Amino acid sequence: MDVNSSPLRVAVIGGGLVGALEAVLLARRGHHVDLYEYREDIRRCPNARGRSINLALSHRGRAALRAAALESTVLAQGVPMRGRMLHAPDGRRTPVPYDVLGKECIYSVNRKFLNEILLSAAETFPNVNLHFNHKLVAADFDSGELTFQAEGGARHVPAPQLLVGADGAHSRVRAAMLRRPGFDFRQSNIEHAYLELRIPPAPDGTSLLQPVNYLHIWPRGSFMLIALPNEDASWTVTLFAPSAQLGRLCAHPHEAPAFFRERGMADALLLLGEEQLRADFAASEPSLLLSVKCEPFNVGGKVVVIGDAAHAMVPFYGQGMNAGFEDCLILDGLLEKFPPEAALNEFSRTRVPDAHAICDLAMYNYVEMRDLVARPSYKLRRCLDSVLHRLAPGLWMPLYQGVTFSRRGYKWCMEHRRRQDKVLRGALTTAGVAAAAVLARWLWDNFEVQEMAPLKRLL
Amino acid sequence: MDVNSSPLRVAVIGGGLVGALEAVLLARRGHHVDLYEYREDIRRCPNARGRSINLALSHRGRAALRAAALESTVLAQGVPMRGRMLHAPDGRRTPVPYDVLGKECIYSVNRKFLNEILLSAAETFPNVNLHFNHKLVAADFDSGELTFQAEGGARHVPAPQLLVGADGAHSRVRAAMLRRPGFDFRQSNIEHAYLELRIPPAPDGTSLLQPVNYLHIWPRGSFMLIALPNEDASWTVTLFAPSAQLGRLCAHPHEAPAFFRERGMADALLLLGEEQLRADFAASEPSLLLSVKCEPFNVGGKVVVIGDAAHAMVPFYGQGMNAGFEDCLILDGLLEKFPPEAALNEFSRTRVPDAHAICDLAMYNYVEMRDLVARPSYKLRRCLDSVLHRLAPGLWMPLYQGVTFSRRGYKWCMEHRRRQDKVLRGALTTAGVAAAAVLARWLWDNFEVQEMAPLKRLL
Repeated sequence: MDVNSSPLRVAVIGGGLVGALEAVLLARRGHHVDLYEYREDIRRCPNARGRSINLALSHRGRAALRAAALESTVLAQGVPMRGRMLHAPDGRRTPVPYDVLGKECIYSVNRKFLNEILLSAAETFPNVNLHFNHKLVAADFDSGELTFQAEGGARHVPAPQLLVGADGAHSRVRAAMLRRPGFDFRQSNIEHAYLELRIPPAPDGTSLLQPVNYLHIWPRGSFMLIALPNEDASWTVTLFAPSAQLGRLCAHPHEAPAFFRERGMADALLLLGEEQLRADFAASEPSLLLSVKCEPFNVGGKVVVIGDAAHAMVPFYGQGMNAGFEDCLILDGLLEKFPPEAALNEFSRTRVPDAHAICDLAMYNYVEMRDLVARPSYKLRRCLDSVLHRLAPGLWMPLYQGVTFSRRGYKWCMEHRRRQDKVLRGALTTAGVAAAAVLARWLWDNFEVQEMAPLKRLL
Repeated sequence: MDVNSSPLRVAVIGGGLVGALEAVLLARRGHHVDLYEYREDIRRCPNARGRSINLALSHRGRAALRAAALESTVLAQGVPMRGRMLHAPDGRRTPVPYDVLGKECIYSVNRKFLNEILLSAAETFPNVNLHFNHKLVAADFDSGELTFQAEGGARHVPAPQLLVGADGAHSRVRAAMLRRPGFDFRQSNIEHAYLELRIPPAPDGTSLLQPVNYLHIWPRGSFMLIALPNEDASWTVTLFAPSAQLGRLCAHPHEAPAFFRERGMADALLLLGEEQLRADFAASEPSLLLSVKCEPFNVGGKVVVIGDAAHAMVPFYGQGMNAGFEDCLILDGLLEKFPPEAALNEFSRTRVPDAHAICDLAMYNYVEMRDLVARPSYKLRRCLDSVLHRLAPGLWMPLYQGVTFSRRGYKWCMEHRRRQDKVLRGALTTAGVAAAAVLARWLWDNFEVQEMAPLKRLL
């Protein structure tokens, strides 16, 4: 039963994935929602290329979609990915399943499709109003008044009872929070940038890259190439590399094919096409990667930020959207249980540590994906994790498993991994000491070394 | 000779200390300066209380004022402080000179007085225009257009050739930079807050707290009280303590005198006055402390942030204003040597690491001031530093000396200290090993322990 017996008047800023899902969840609880999006209605735009056009939907995101009764609709259009397919420089390929038990998978989903589904779902509610081409230019947290730049000039909107900022990494709502006392904020760019390429479908409509149900990775130490499958048998391919290196290739696109050949990505080059590759590098600019942390996520019971507005992260754990969707789910539960102020305070208190943890994990996973994944020590650890998880799935959960296929807090997942590392180090040390002792005893008993005689007498 | 042969049209945002000095230095080079300040002219305001009304002027700030031909005017109104006067809980006092050689001192200067001097100096130039009550609301870095909220509504100003953001810790210019690709930013609040109190002059116009030429400190581990002398024989007293503790005292002001007595600050309480103290706590709210780091400081050759807008820091090194003034001085030199874009790029390249270093040092110094300063290890180190600095002033510069009485980069000062720590640790280890060896040898020679016999034979 909802403790907020009377429905709230809520303004959601941002009609992207997280804002649209938030509108649906609020509407299902009977709240009155005005959703403001600064772009035009994406359902009326041609398919945009360039910015992470497909996303990896996993357990947390699915749970939130389920609460909005949209999970099956979305999954029907997603392409399952059962694991990573690692491409070695010599062309050899090694599959690495995501779920060590082989049961779970993640889904490659088209961003535009997902956004459309969510907006259309929001629109079915009589208590939701969608306002496109509305850019938030001022949010006065004292009076609560919002000012938008809309067609026909400035539009002032009287104070909603709750303002939800789901307006992305460059959030305007968060920008207004920046000036409040006690607000901590950090945005940082990483040295690496990315560029999007595409493998088209074969003329007969099948996929050129096989097998389809994998996320393909060419890990090359300082950089990497990845490919995610699309519903139409094309692949979205992304090259992540140091900004300077990527900038150089864009400035000299004719060198791009040689770069692919010399760095052991000849198999990818074949599918991307040399001519197309040169054209893509000539037409593109590298996109930068931003990581955002802030605290708290709320201003009393009036304002809250969710999704990228609260915790933009680098894309290497595939958790950006999933974490944003989970925000909606958690907030939904809290608003059901507590009055708004208590709900938002509790949201900040519990969610901030998890958000910081997944931002850090996403950063760490870049090193894992482009470098560690190809090392024997990684393979050994993965193997150990897999055996222990099979033996005691409740006790031993591999990090990736916890993040991707459970709803355990991200911080718990990170700390659980640290505890595992300690256990393994302890076991290794014990084993090493035991082996050394056995060896020493054997030497002692079997060799009569002259110089050891006095020592033997002494002991 | 100035490479920028034709003068620039410059807009300086912020008419505080740093913005006003920047306007003077630019004007002296012949540039056309419009200075925009969102408050009214401070020269027409009554003396404001509450926010760090006096500042510690030291070497770097003085160098910048000298370049503006204002040093002697300012020093004439400042109160020299030759060192820290530490107040122990039992009332005993220990002076700790700032300069181990006893030559240098810092000056307690009134913020309002200094701001007035600087604004009046700027106003004497025909090529400077001051605009008060102008709040920057939008800065379009592409067109360059600035929009201000002024009396009588919005005012649009066409693109200046150079935009200097000297608009403080909550800088609007920096806020516009936040949305540019590749801009790193961090703002963090510390757990501690502060509250300002005052010791009035004695009825005969002399100072109640003696000696006058010191910065008095009551270091108490988790919190501290400091007092800075004013020209009129009054003292500005600041209590720094954990926010929660300070908030509790403001909510229960009648407990404040007991707090002072029980925490060994009875001597300060006597001068502050019990009744006045209760009234001050009742009328005040704790102020929070913000630290800001960002990178880069410029957008091409068009925009640059300086002072708190670029690097707001906690006040514990007394370097906030000095670092801001030094920014002006460095920028002045670079703009003389290079065309604007090269000058601003060079400013970012060289100044960012120093700014980050002083922000970190300021944070560290809080621990030193409220806690370490009272410990024997600190006193020993200070004594060692002092001896070594006397012996080789060029080779061994104590950290505080470098930061406060030199123009060495802040980062150099920090790293120099780390090298010193290494040298001292090395010397200590060597001394320890040597002592142990001597002792061992003596034991060996003088005692015939039965159990050691086989070992002696063995060796």
